[in-house]
Amino acid sequence: MPRHVDHEQRRAQVVAVATDLVVVEGRDALTVRNVARASGCSTKVVSHYFADVTELHHATYAAAAGRASARVQAVLDADSGDVAGLLGALLPVDAERARDWTIWLSFWSEALPSERLRADQAERSRSIDERLARALGVLVERGELAPDVDVDVAGCRLGAILHGVAIQATFDPERWPPGRQRDVVDSELALLGIRSPAAR
Amino acid sequence: MPRHVDHEQRRAQVVAVATDLVVVEGRDALTVRNVARASGCSTKVVSHYFADVTELHHATYAAAAGRASARVQAVLDADSGDVAGLLGALLPVDAERARDWTIWLSFWSEALPSERLRADQAERSRSIDERLARALGVLVERGELAPDVDVDVAGCRLGAILHGVAIQATFDPERWPPGRQRDVVDSELALLGIRSPAAR
Repeated sequence: MPRHVDHEQRRAQVVAVATDLVVVEGRDALTVRNVARASGCSTKVVSHYFADVTELHHATYAAAAGRASARVQAVLDADSGDVAGLLGALLPVDAERARDWTIWLSFWSEALPSERLRADQAERSRSIDERLARALGVLVERGELAPDVDVDVAGCRLGAILHGVAIQATFDPERWPPGRQRDVVDSELALLGIRSPAAR
Repeated sequence: MPRHVDHEQRRAQVVAVATDLVVVEGRDALTVRNVARASGCSTKVVSHYFADVTELHHATYAAAAGRASARVQAVLDADSGDVAGLLGALLPVDAERARDWTIWLSFWSEALPSERLRADQAERSRSIDERLARALGVLVERGELAPDVDVDVAGCRLGAILHGVAIQATFDPERWPPGRQRDVVDSELALLGIRSPAAR
């Protein structure tokens, strides 16, 4: 195996172990020592890949963002106007998506006082709103959404609902099972006059 | 001055100093030493009021929740159907409300792995949704909202938009000035057929 592939794979393994730690035990459990112990390697190996715990934590955040981007892209590749699918790709309706949101939420406290990390988070949210607005625009072009709908404002509203539902579902999964998350999102699509697809 | 008043006042002063530290420098800056230094007192005084930093951090969260409750109650006392006012009382549209959201966000990372703190957060969100649904119900009774609107689902949608807008505004105040926060919320009220009040 080429050396750089091995490097990338082992780095990804460390990030996966770090993600498990944050999801199951919380951000405070993310230490180089704990990651080394859970990986069955020495702290030196972890330190070889990450300068410090903050960098490792950021890598878990970026990995979750990468998974979300891939899900979003798969939806848009299949149908560029699939607004409901786009929202479904990001809502915490399965184990992977729920883990991603736990990682993001665990990160926000540290991101707030950092200009760079706050800008990262702001950019992510802005990009989601823009994708939603673009998908709504496709529906307008197809005649599946009234042309007088302000797609930018509607995209922001859907993006806000997505964030709000996801956060509440992360803290309160009993009250927010996948079906309820989708019902609330679908009720907004219904208000816009977009019919919910039979299967998602 | 009675002894217990003095105690409560000094405790509130320590919480105010701790809030400033978290808002300006971030959660990691919240240490007993930093609070003591900023208060101009010894660490012993801080430790007299709070067992540890976690308890002090939770007190900043509870104080922010108390301020929010008071704002919400003032709106409802004036008009039990003032949905827009209720949302305005919670959105980060002024310095106090923006600080409150920064405190809540700074807390979520620690709340996630704690059953008790997660339940606190879940209860807060549920209570907001219920208040919104109740205010919408008042509008239905008054004939200001169509009787076929599902006020529970609409309340959840408004609660989700509130959370989503507030979080994005906290990370990206330039993109989310107060006027834009209100525009997005008002656009949802308009979809429901509720007219936005002239002044809020």
